[in-house]
Amino acid sequence: MNEKLTELRDLLGEVDDISKAASILSWDQQAYMPPGGAPARASQLGTLSRLAHEKFTDERMGRLLYELSKETRDLPYDDDTASLIRVTKRDYEKAVRLPSTFVAELAEASGLGTTAWAQARAENQWDGFSDHLKKMIELKQREADYLGYHEKMYDALLDSYEPDMKTREVAEMFDAVRRELVPLVRAIASNADRVDDAALHRAYDPAKQWELAHEALRTIGYDFQRGRMDKVPHPFCTTFSNHDVRVTNRVLPDFFNSAFFGALHEGGHALYELGSPDRFERTTLAGGTSLSVHESQSRMWENLVGRSRAFWQFFFPKFKKTFRKNAADMDAEKMYRAVSKVQPSYIRVEADEVTYSLHVMLRFEAENMLVENKLKVSELPAWWDEAMSSYLGVTPPDVAHGVLQDVHWSLGYYGYFPTYSLGTFFSAQLFDKAREQLGDLDEQFARGEFAPLREWLTENIYQHGRKYTLTELATRITGEPLQTRSYIAYLKKKYSEIYDL
Amino acid sequence: MNEKLTELRDLLGEVDDISKAASILSWDQQAYMPPGGAPARASQLGTLSRLAHEKFTDERMGRLLYELSKETRDLPYDDDTASLIRVTKRDYEKAVRLPSTFVAELAEASGLGTTAWAQARAENQWDGFSDHLKKMIELKQREADYLGYHEKMYDALLDSYEPDMKTREVAEMFDAVRRELVPLVRAIASNADRVDDAALHRAYDPAKQWELAHEALRTIGYDFQRGRMDKVPHPFCTTFSNHDVRVTNRVLPDFFNSAFFGALHEGGHALYELGSPDRFERTTLAGGTSLSVHESQSRMWENLVGRSRAFWQFFFPKFKKTFRKNAADMDAEKMYRAVSKVQPSYIRVEADEVTYSLHVMLRFEAENMLVENKLKVSELPAWWDEAMSSYLGVTPPDVAHGVLQDVHWSLGYYGYFPTYSLGTFFSAQLFDKAREQLGDLDEQFARGEFAPLREWLTENIYQHGRKYTLTELATRITGEPLQTRSYIAYLKKKYSEIYDL
Repeated sequence: MNEKLTELRDLLGEVDDISKAASILSWDQQAYMPPGGAPARASQLGTLSRLAHEKFTDERMGRLLYELSKETRDLPYDDDTASLIRVTKRDYEKAVRLPSTFVAELAEASGLGTTAWAQARAENQWDGFSDHLKKMIELKQREADYLGYHEKMYDALLDSYEPDMKTREVAEMFDAVRRELVPLVRAIASNADRVDDAALHRAYDPAKQWELAHEALRTIGYDFQRGRMDKVPHPFCTTFSNHDVRVTNRVLPDFFNSAFFGALHEGGHALYELGSPDRFERTTLAGGTSLSVHESQSRMWENLVGRSRAFWQFFFPKFKKTFRKNAADMDAEKMYRAVSKVQPSYIRVEADEVTYSLHVMLRFEAENMLVENKLKVSELPAWWDEAMSSYLGVTPPDVAHGVLQDVHWSLGYYGYFPTYSLGTFFSAQLFDKAREQLGDLDEQFARGEFAPLREWLTENIYQHGRKYTLTELATRITGEPLQTRSYIAYLKKKYSEIYDL
Repeated sequence: MNEKLTELRDLLGEVDDISKAASILSWDQQAYMPPGGAPARASQLGTLSRLAHEKFTDERMGRLLYELSKETRDLPYDDDTASLIRVTKRDYEKAVRLPSTFVAELAEASGLGTTAWAQARAENQWDGFSDHLKKMIELKQREADYLGYHEKMYDALLDSYEPDMKTREVAEMFDAVRRELVPLVRAIASNADRVDDAALHRAYDPAKQWELAHEALRTIGYDFQRGRMDKVPHPFCTTFSNHDVRVTNRVLPDFFNSAFFGALHEGGHALYELGSPDRFERTTLAGGTSLSVHESQSRMWENLVGRSRAFWQFFFPKFKKTFRKNAADMDAEKMYRAVSKVQPSYIRVEADEVTYSLHVMLRFEAENMLVENKLKVSELPAWWDEAMSSYLGVTPPDVAHGVLQDVHWSLGYYGYFPTYSLGTFFSAQLFDKAREQLGDLDEQFARGEFAPLREWLTENIYQHGRKYTLTELATRITGEPLQTRSYIAYLKKKYSEIYDL
């Protein structure tokens, strides 16, 4: 067995090296690449993706996994080796269902689609993108057929981002949350004047914002010896090893939140990846287990920590020192309220904590209808505007700020959006448990102590890498699967107080 | 034949994609990677190098080359296809001599060695690096054995950077140049007071230096749509495609030359790579043909252009505008003389035009002794200081400014240093020809016209990519192989005038 295991680890290590190289190329493409570099970069990324897929789906891999899973069937579920085989097998069985030609076709459509999307958005024109979207939906329908599903075609797509999660489960959770959110948003709207965030919409020196975003990352314990932050148009976090996890961010010169909460959000993703143990490196067990669990970390640090009263009790003096003029009419309490302002808007990435999930639900609905051919691409813009108005009471001024705002569909990311909300629900569920076990988190935050929470997350989540699914993790930590109760309670408590409800 | 040619091109394209990906990883490693990233990066680079090597040395490649070279034997030597097969065959025959495992071992040692070197240099400690150097020399000795050689072990290493060049030829040229340089340096030393460069050794605002280095690059025609400049400890130029060629550079806060001439030097390399034709992309014909020819370009723009009187007649006003205070007691003529100051020193990259080759000769000597076990790694620092004193009459204050100053040996670049001087010789040989064919270059430079020279170089060198060797190029352009006559004449003429000899 040991020899086979060594061979498996060697193969996985090679695949991981190639995949990580592709990540470095993508990071550079978004952070530093000059415009002329695009065509060659597409070809380089295509070759690396194809190679990684070819090597991972090699027959030898299949045989090794088959033999090793027989030989390790008596090992406990939690055992590292048993988990390595189990998780690799799950990834492998999914990967071999997609023919390499299809993977290449998808990659090409994604490249062309993204370019078309960027142009369409810049020109505020739906037409240039709609054919690409049609093509992409056809491809994703084919992908779902390759991958297979029982109930809903969408299950197959969702499973790529959140293993074992079903469309039906998501719909049920979304329904439960929506029932509570809609009246909450309405109640807040009638007390809108309780919170004033005008101070956040002032001129904030970009260089100072950048420095304060670094300070925010240092505050939550992000290690700059094992990472860095660079400027990009659309922030993300990327992993080159568990000792090189980078965040990216952007700065808006006249809006404080973007860079600051962007840093906390991506920093939350980064802490998770940095906490993945050394012994899992270069295997399928390294890194975060699913998009929802990942998002539970980013949104926890962004919102449950970064938008808490206690955080600003600690951080306001730093804010004030950096932005003396802007902070003159503010204090910690006003800052806490300002960054928590609820304001229905048409841009998801700028949405507040309360309305955020409504954006996600709308996309979930659209994706389901599109892949099931219940909504035509030509009908999408009109449907979007109507849905926006019914979900959020706002109507986008144009397609650029409406249906074209997000890059995901052009890239072929269908089934991805729901994980933003599932992760948000999970963050609240985890936070309740952390509070129960760590004592008064607020007191700790107010003193600038974020290590206890980070260590709790390391112990309960980070150290397991990809060993457990979302449901397994949730059950191990909180005694039950993902639930929406904690999230709803959190929102109601926080926002009833802020908005005098 | 066409089918086989297409297959060959596909294989070469794949190899090129992987190699370029490795270059991107190296660039990041030196420009942006956080310290923690080093071990994983070494492994990623090792895997990519091994893969590129495996794919390039695949049996199928050998068969294709064998068959295609038979089928194309009637094509003219200059023909693109004939050249593609010829050059690929030469590369292939060299590559198949190195086992893939050895290539990966080398890449990994290089990654670890570079990190160790950077740390050793920063800490001014020889010990942390000496074991890496020992290991690397053993690897290079093995490499030479794999590659094979007739006269000298060093021939095998030299050939990787300058195909067909022999140690004996280099030694002969170096002897010829040394005979002329030593009395010239001595004569200059006794008239040292003729040139005052104190103005260059003042505080120069780093941000402004960075901006002026960009201006220098724009001046010689470097296209920032197809490149960029980033900060690194040790400047280099790197190619990700002929539409993404990046320079790197460093800034010394109290010495003007470093960033400015660094930009011109790396810019010269970049112009060559950017001038490689599209039709050669993703094949072995793309890019510069050899290190010496490359260095002829960097040193031409750095010295024959950038340290010319005419250049400063044009550029001095820009310098003055940026550094008004420092320029107050300067003019174009004083600037020309100051940047041409001859001053034996211990740092190669900051060496003047006259003493530069003495640095290279010292390293050539050390490398030969090291690979032939005539000098032990433990003896190297002491040998270095003594050689410095005998070649240049200076003694480095410490190892960081002595034997540890250059990154090359940590990367496994043995046989590389001589090309710096060979290229310098070639730059003068080419420049004589350019003057003959382009009319008064000085008048053009003084007017800020650098396009004629750039176009001449494109026509005579850049457009051929790797089609011709140094000797072939030299003969095509100047009617004779590489010679040192032009270089010696250039130095004597310029410096006799400046130093009243």
